[in-house]
Amino acid sequence: MKVNKNYQNIAQSYLFSTIAKKVNEFSEYNSDKKIIKLGIGDVTLPLCKAVVDALKSASEEMGNKETFRGYGPEQGYDFLKDKIKDYYAGHSVKLESDEIFISDGAKSDLGNILDLFDKDNTVLVPDPVYPVYVDTNTMAGRKIIYMDANADNDFLPLPNENIKADIIYLCSPNNPTGAVYNKEQLKKWVDFANKNGAIILFDSAYECFITDKNLPRSIFEIEGSKTCAIEFCSFSKMAGFTGTRCGWTVVSKDLIFEDMSLNKMWLRRQTTKFNGVPYIVQKGAEAVFSPEGQKQIAQNLDYYKENAKLISDVLTKHNIWHIGGKHSPYIWLRCPDNMKSWEFFDYLLENIQIVGTPGSGFGKNGEGYFRLTSFGSFENTREAVERLDKFLK
Amino acid sequence: MKVNKNYQNIAQSYLFSTIAKKVNEFSEYNSDKKIIKLGIGDVTLPLCKAVVDALKSASEEMGNKETFRGYGPEQGYDFLKDKIKDYYAGHSVKLESDEIFISDGAKSDLGNILDLFDKDNTVLVPDPVYPVYVDTNTMAGRKIIYMDANADNDFLPLPNENIKADIIYLCSPNNPTGAVYNKEQLKKWVDFANKNGAIILFDSAYECFITDKNLPRSIFEIEGSKTCAIEFCSFSKMAGFTGTRCGWTVVSKDLIFEDMSLNKMWLRRQTTKFNGVPYIVQKGAEAVFSPEGQKQIAQNLDYYKENAKLISDVLTKHNIWHIGGKHSPYIWLRCPDNMKSWEFFDYLLENIQIVGTPGSGFGKNGEGYFRLTSFGSFENTREAVERLDKFLK
Repeated sequence: MKVNKNYQNIAQSYLFSTIAKKVNEFSEYNSDKKIIKLGIGDVTLPLCKAVVDALKSASEEMGNKETFRGYGPEQGYDFLKDKIKDYYAGHSVKLESDEIFISDGAKSDLGNILDLFDKDNTVLVPDPVYPVYVDTNTMAGRKIIYMDANADNDFLPLPNENIKADIIYLCSPNNPTGAVYNKEQLKKWVDFANKNGAIILFDSAYECFITDKNLPRSIFEIEGSKTCAIEFCSFSKMAGFTGTRCGWTVVSKDLIFEDMSLNKMWLRRQTTKFNGVPYIVQKGAEAVFSPEGQKQIAQNLDYYKENAKLISDVLTKHNIWHIGGKHSPYIWLRCPDNMKSWEFFDYLLENIQIVGTPGSGFGKNGEGYFRLTSFGSFENTREAVERLDKFLK
Repeated sequence: MKVNKNYQNIAQSYLFSTIAKKVNEFSEYNSDKKIIKLGIGDVTLPLCKAVVDALKSASEEMGNKETFRGYGPEQGYDFLKDKIKDYYAGHSVKLESDEIFISDGAKSDLGNILDLFDKDNTVLVPDPVYPVYVDTNTMAGRKIIYMDANADNDFLPLPNENIKADIIYLCSPNNPTGAVYNKEQLKKWVDFANKNGAIILFDSAYECFITDKNLPRSIFEIEGSKTCAIEFCSFSKMAGFTGTRCGWTVVSKDLIFEDMSLNKMWLRRQTTKFNGVPYIVQKGAEAVFSPEGQKQIAQNLDYYKENAKLISDVLTKHNIWHIGGKHSPYIWLRCPDNMKSWEFFDYLLENIQIVGTPGSGFGKNGEGYFRLTSFGSFENTREAVERLDKFLK
């Protein structure tokens, strides 16, 4: 048996293990000092009551012969797809139920969708980037090219007619930078993709942090997108589902490449290689859209947004260039005094015991930048901000 | 963007849609007649109490800040992997925890595992076969060859030195035939694979139906298997998890091909393209191994086994050749009077309103055979058996 040798080409990332090592070493010699972690990429607030109630009631149903559910539809139950359809209608996007596929998370489907594409395609990813886009394509042996996201373009690269690519990754609000495309910018990408026969894989996992009604929460708010884009979204950040696992993928029926319907191909892929998300979890996700669920998740999102604002405000006060934090849980800042990313990491850890993520871990354009997140507790975030305020004076 | 054109080569199966159509047509003109479905491939008994209690208590944990869980390990929580390790130890198989990967079901991983293999491998599948083995490899563009499973070999094909293959699918107890390999037969496959540098993908999703202690429940009961086999198993049939979604995959650290560790490759694949099974579901699965859970699932399995015995006994009484039913929920019978599979389907439906699955739907060697399952209710199964008893006289 011949193995897939592309696996030899996947870069090993030591980003988070190096952070953990440095933090452990520091605390060993400074056990009296309280370290505050603002590098967390995971939610910390529990599931809201409406969701927990739905999970429990669905568990009861599964224990009862009359209401037990066996194999469900691989693409998800209508009760959930209809709610997502209505959610999109709320920001003026019209979808049909069979264009929505329930997934066990955006990350899974961002990898799995590649099954539909030939190996011989060129992939365009921004730098800095969420590593999964790169690693999944490396595994499949595709050629990857990078586009610069940097301060000159506010970390929002736009299409360049000289660069030819078949598969384009966009993430807005962005991980790791928190930058958000506006409609005019996304329209440029949609026009570029349609003109060049390219497909856009649009990761909208952080759309729930957008508060400005003029900013697009979905690529499908852009005219022409249904013939060139697939969107991946998730309950992970919206409703704290990182350990509960539910998301969705939108593949329009207008998405036709080489006379093949990607909607039909994806349905075939999912019915063959997936067996659907647990019924219980889909019932939990449905409850997110109930009036109580909406109220409760809004409170949680506000909590994170308030944290983000605190961090952003202290950076503004001290004239530290940064983006994100407004429509995103991430704050992306330029390290002061031209420090390198890891230099600033050590500097913060040693002096005020704040842990963040060095931007250089996300790509070469991340060098000299640093990521803070709003997923910590309010108390810790406030304390961290006070430390920063004193220290940056 | 160039699509994956292999999708054009996937055969469309009309097996279950044709069955549904025929049943609907019949009932339209015979609304007074009670149809009994013995074609069901899904469990019908609800989750046992121990599992439901665990699901509910884990849901509570997720609603509490102190016990909330975000992202978990992609390969599964230790609390569940350790229980599975002990389960294997119970039939004398020694595994390490990091050789066990928790999945959302055997079907998903049977497809996903193919990511680790080069396109240029020849795949050997039995005929008749579970269609997923064929479809997933067709999608990836691999060459597929078939080995005959038929009455001459009791539907348990053995290796043939003249046939060269790199990836070999074995399913025991078999779907659709219910045939079970013994240790000597599996040893032949293990030796063949080790000798020829092939890998065995061993689908053991029905192992829980084995009652004879001499029959292998895992390929890892066979010496030499750790260097040539991957095993896929599931809570679906064992504990009624078809709609709850949990299984596991065993990739030994001894599994090395072309100097690459498949255990490490699979870990990398899963951490990149999967985010783990919901915490709640893993807690539910853990409860399967509690003393109460074990007692309760044994009752459910006994219920199905009793159904299988009823069906098998009536066929034996009327001298109808069949296999399965003993260590399997499936009964695979030769259609009487040399009838073709669909002919027998119509014959049973029209005369005694019993619905089964035509064997020809699973491959050319299934022609002239028919599959019945034990997943119906005891009352319906008994009634169906009484009808068969009268009719076959």
